[in-house]
Amino acid sequence: MTLIAPDVGIPDQPGVETVRRLAERCSNWGRWGADDELGTLNHIGPDEVAAAAGLVRTGRVFSLSIPVDENGPQTGGFGRFNPIHLMIRDGNGAATGTTVRDFYGGRDRWIRGTDDLLILPLQSGTQWDSLAHIVFDNRIYNGYDATSVGSKGAIRNDIANARDRLVGRGVLLDIPRAKGRPWLEPGEAIHAEDLEACERAQGVTVGRGDIVLVRTGQIAQCRDAGSWGAYAGGPAPGLALDAAPWIFDRELAAVATDTWGMEVLPNQTEDVFQPLHIILIVHAGLLVGEIFDLEALAEDCAVDGRYEFLISAAPLPITGGVGSPVNPIAIK
Amino acid sequence: MTLIAPDVGIPDQPGVETVRRLAERCSNWGRWGADDELGTLNHIGPDEVAAAAGLVRTGRVFSLSIPVDENGPQTGGFGRFNPIHLMIRDGNGAATGTTVRDFYGGRDRWIRGTDDLLILPLQSGTQWDSLAHIVFDNRIYNGYDATSVGSKGAIRNDIANARDRLVGRGVLLDIPRAKGRPWLEPGEAIHAEDLEACERAQGVTVGRGDIVLVRTGQIAQCRDAGSWGAYAGGPAPGLALDAAPWIFDRELAAVATDTWGMEVLPNQTEDVFQPLHIILIVHAGLLVGEIFDLEALAEDCAVDGRYEFLISAAPLPITGGVGSPVNPIAIK
Amino acid sequence: MTLIAPDVGIPDQPGVETVRRLAERCSNWGRWGADDELGTLNHIGPDEVAAAAGLVRTGRVFSLSIPVDENGPQTGGFGRFNPIHLMIRDGNGAATGTTVRDFYGGRDRWIRGTDDLLILPLQSGTQWDSLAHIVFDNRIYNGYDATSVGSKGAIRNDIANARDRLVGRGVLLDIPRAKGRPWLEPGEAIHAEDLEACERAQGVTVGRGDIVLVRTGQIAQCRDAGSWGAYAGGPAPGLALDAAPWIFDRELAAVATDTWGMEVLPNQTEDVFQPLHIILIVHAGLLVGEIFDLEALAEDCAVDGRYEFLISAAPLPITGGVGSPVNPIAIK
Amino acid sequence: MTLIAPDVGIPDQPGVETVRRLAERCSNWGRWGADDELGTLNHIGPDEVAAAAGLVRTGRVFSLSIPVDENGPQTGGFGRFNPIHLMIRDGNGAATGTTVRDFYGGRDRWIRGTDDLLILPLQSGTQWDSLAHIVFDNRIYNGYDATSVGSKGAIRNDIANARDRLVGRGVLLDIPRAKGRPWLEPGEAIHAEDLEACERAQGVTVGRGDIVLVRTGQIAQCRDAGSWGAYAGGPAPGLALDAAPWIFDRELAAVATDTWGMEVLPNQTEDVFQPLHIILIVHAGLLVGEIFDLEALAEDCAVDGRYEFLISAAPLPITGGVGSPVNPIAIK
Repeated sequence: MTLIAPDVGIPDQPGVETVRRLAERCSNWGRWGADDELGTLNHIGPDEVAAAAGLVRTGRVFSLSIPVDENGPQTGGFGRFNPIHLMIRDGNGAATGTTVRDFYGGRDRWIRGTDDLLILPLQSGTQWDSLAHIVFDNRIYNGYDATSVGSKGAIRNDIANARDRLVGRGVLLDIPRAKGRPWLEPGEAIHAEDLEACERAQGVTVGRGDIVLVRTGQIAQCRDAGSWGAYAGGPAPGLALDAAPWIFDRELAAVATDTWGMEVLPNQTEDVFQPLHIILIVHAGLLVGEIFDLEALAEDCAVDGRYEFLISAAPLPITGGVGSPVNPIAIK
Repeated sequence: MTLIAPDVGIPDQPGVETVRRLAERCSNWGRWGADDELGTLNHIGPDEVAAAAGLVRTGRVFSLSIPVDENGPQTGGFGRFNPIHLMIRDGNGAATGTTVRDFYGGRDRWIRGTDDLLILPLQSGTQWDSLAHIVFDNRIYNGYDATSVGSKGAIRNDIANARDRLVGRGVLLDIPRAKGRPWLEPGEAIHAEDLEACERAQGVTVGRGDIVLVRTGQIAQCRDAGSWGAYAGGPAPGLALDAAPWIFDRELAAVATDTWGMEVLPNQTEDVFQPLHIILIVHAGLLVGEIFDLEALAEDCAVDGRYEFLISAAPLPITGGVGSPVNPIAIK
Repeated sequence: MTLIAPDVGIPDQPGVETVRRLAERCSNWGRWGADDELGTLNHIGPDEVAAAAGLVRTGRVFSLSIPVDENGPQTGGFGRFNPIHLMIRDGNGAATGTTVRDFYGGRDRWIRGTDDLLILPLQSGTQWDSLAHIVFDNRIYNGYDATSVGSKGAIRNDIANARDRLVGRGVLLDIPRAKGRPWLEPGEAIHAEDLEACERAQGVTVGRGDIVLVRTGQIAQCRDAGSWGAYAGGPAPGLALDAAPWIFDRELAAVATDTWGMEVLPNQTEDVFQPLHIILIVHAGLLVGEIFDLEALAEDCAVDGRYEFLISAAPLPITGGVGSPVNPIAIK
Repeated sequence: MTLIAPDVGIPDQPGVETVRRLAERCSNWGRWGADDELGTLNHIGPDEVAAAAGLVRTGRVFSLSIPVDENGPQTGGFGRFNPIHLMIRDGNGAATGTTVRDFYGGRDRWIRGTDDLLILPLQSGTQWDSLAHIVFDNRIYNGYDATSVGSKGAIRNDIANARDRLVGRGVLLDIPRAKGRPWLEPGEAIHAEDLEACERAQGVTVGRGDIVLVRTGQIAQCRDAGSWGAYAGGPAPGLALDAAPWIFDRELAAVATDTWGMEVLPNQTEDVFQPLHIILIVHAGLLVGEIFDLEALAEDCAVDGRYEFLISAAPLPITGGVGSPVNPIAIK
């Protein structure tokens, strides 16, 4: 494992050619066979899981999901809205007696139930992007055609492939804390050298099969401001282009951030939007998590100095899903 | 911990009075304070979680969720339908170029994304019932009024309370296997003595804070038949009334089955529908899981003879949710 | 028919007692029988419809609905959002060939279809309020209990009752034009005397069975501003309390406005929100239309001086619906 | 106007070449300009509307929509399900007091409202197909590219184009009644000569700009059977291929039937599914209505012998919609 940030020669004004070069540099197409749909999840095997379980010391459990409700960050971009929660039957119907009338055929057998429903854009809150989420040059991960993702969903690379994955060693890289600040500012890039400096500051090293959580503090900043503001789709701190080969070389299984889109926004590439999505999701086949709420976990890690833990973050096995909501659980 | 099935004196033809007696016998109202919304999840603390992590040996991971898609078991009962998966934007739009037109304001910056959406009844597939899911005598768990569950969802006992819970020691009780059969038949009751016989056959003992998975084999039976048939709401094998005090006395944190509704159907009580929901959810405050797919896990347990494992099954933190889909993960 | 605005003695600071008095004054409970669910629609019979058809001269047709799409006025109040339009299958799938794969079982028989879906709050755009939409003192129109509107919808007074109604003589009362202004300002009340002055200015008289469209110009104002702003739920011009007995005495079948909520906002009653909804919907049983786009029709009426026409505005027959989207058609 | 069924030389075993020939024979591409999106709706102008209003005699009104609810005919084909109706807030909340808590910020100002929501596949019930609903050889009506119908809906030929159309002379052709039968059987074709025989039997002639309702009686048959059965997508009586040039030559504005898909099923063309959709929607630009409930209207027409009326059947102006639910109103 290299501990040196790779020299990938990012030019001052990178563009699509740089993206193509990095995509080739970080490509995992074919690495696990022509039929692979797991990408970097192949870096985790049973041994890694067993070892990760050994990291549990105190049994403290952290949920890394923001609440699933109408108060989320979405403002309509890309057709995404906040989850809509509706009752199919509720306790008022129990209290007034209409539940029996409406749901039990009028026969009262003492019980009354309540049921509910979500209308849920799968990328609206804390979520995994599947390897079918991004298309570049008409291809998704491992070279499958873009048309693999049709009106009925993805027949290749859907999120259900990860149904029994995304369990393993989790490592938090708390970038602002390593820099002695509460959060990074929107537009502030996290370079490979920042990731390594954070490792050194925290006394931890990330490697093959790790699920790495990169904290920018943007959720803390929103809470401090009392509003999501432009969190969804607006300027954000995030990973820089040179983080891609670093992530690739370290053979990480997944990377998640506490931002809407993992990458620094505005992007370094004037002509390419969200270039790391192209490099990491399409070519490296990396599972990317977004809108992970790392605040409570980060507090705890700062207190005990332990930044590694067992993480259990399997998605819902949504057939054809190009994303999935997830409540990632860190166990220390 | 008692290993003896409690003598609860279930009459031959039990009715609502038996249900009331059992509800009183198994009540946890007030046990953890007048404001408690966690119920039996209080049986799990950090020590139990840490001990459970110690059960992991091989790192094999099992997903216990059925696929989230339109081919689920629901047929409309109680307003429940199978999940509806729709694309907001797909790979065809990437292939034809309309993604740029429709989602990026006409400016081509190389990337194309796909997004999707679920319309998801929260009790449609593999799920946890929250402690707000069942009302009896106009009360939900801990005595809160039924009107705590209004049009906007539950303001008491919602599933989000369990956001960092439902992680702990999992134990599979494979009832049919202990009886040397592939599955129990619909209408076949599982009594406390069956649970204990299964413990003995498997060489395992369940106790305080455990998340117990009771396999009936009904999903296997449906797969064998090639159809869900009347799985959702129809006759089912399941727990009998005398299982309630047994579960209560063992101080289990949660119980899940591979059936639609945990209980034997037709119920023992002619006049009460789903009496265990009243006793266990409303009064004991027990988290109940349903439609857990235990087949692959059961095969593995039969092979290695180990029926205990770490289970990680936190729900989505749906504000006001009376249930949540879950992809329960068993780690052996 | 009285042509004089009734003296209803509205006090300077009206409150709930005034509302109660007006509700009693304008009540139609029992007028058409104890089982009536039609309310003022009883004022229209075949003769009125036939006479209304006779108003058609030129055959010009006006649609009075705002577009049904995500750019509507809703901002989340009362759980209302703008309609969400999603494709089930689209033309891109036809172009790339995935429609055959995903929807025709892989057998190409030349045709490709497109299908779509709406998630539609029924009060989100141009709509009729049913007589089940408002509850006062636990009663809806004709005295039915509030619990008639349960989790499955209204079993009394649902909008489907009007499936073959709301066809008849339409009359536009263009209040701002009668006052020589482009629009009324938010908070500006329309009194009975304004309605009568408008009748005189336009040379038209409204009466029994008419479907009266009251233009405030608020939609024009929003268009002029380039934004819906606070249109949904915010300050609005609209009917004053003394319009209620006027509407009642005139025996109108329905009243619609180009505002979110028909009434002047802020309301005259400090302690009662939307008092006319109580008086007119609950007690008079009046069908109320909202967010009717009257701009093009008003222009035409101003040109030819004819403010009466055939209107055809039946709702969708939504079983249990407490409202319905509608595309009201005026034929001149 | 020809009253003779055109000799179009349909071979005994027609196939795609016959469809192509008929499509060319019946094409309206370019007829109303390269930018036209109205198709045969151009056949109706103000004069036709005014004349149609003159058909109103008695003022009897007929709704031609089936109920919009969960009991509709859909069974999942093409991703279509029956409408799902959910309450956002209901009368139970009014009765128990939670409406004030949940929707009015806790401040009681006397009123309580109820609101609801539909999840509505636009082709699930009584509906118009827009001219963007069918693609053939990668083109929709007037030659627009299939990709005009992307993830955000149709940017060409959407149903909103008809927002102030589909009002005019309606004519019912009651085919089974003309044959002295209660209904046609599934698979029974309606040929041009059947249409003309029906005209003669009824003493009516259809022509330019008419909105023609062709009754097969299939809904009556379903009602008689007590079940929708295979109504949605299964064998059906319907129009034969030779009806296409007849409809084209008569210059009808729209054709609707009481079946799921207008055409006889099984289709005459072994290799082409729903060939009339290709000929009439894609090439003739004809508005097609489906699942129109013609039973009550047909009874009335049989009684008074008058088969013509004013019809008002504008769709909801759904931006980008490829279909729309409609409650068509016939006024006699």
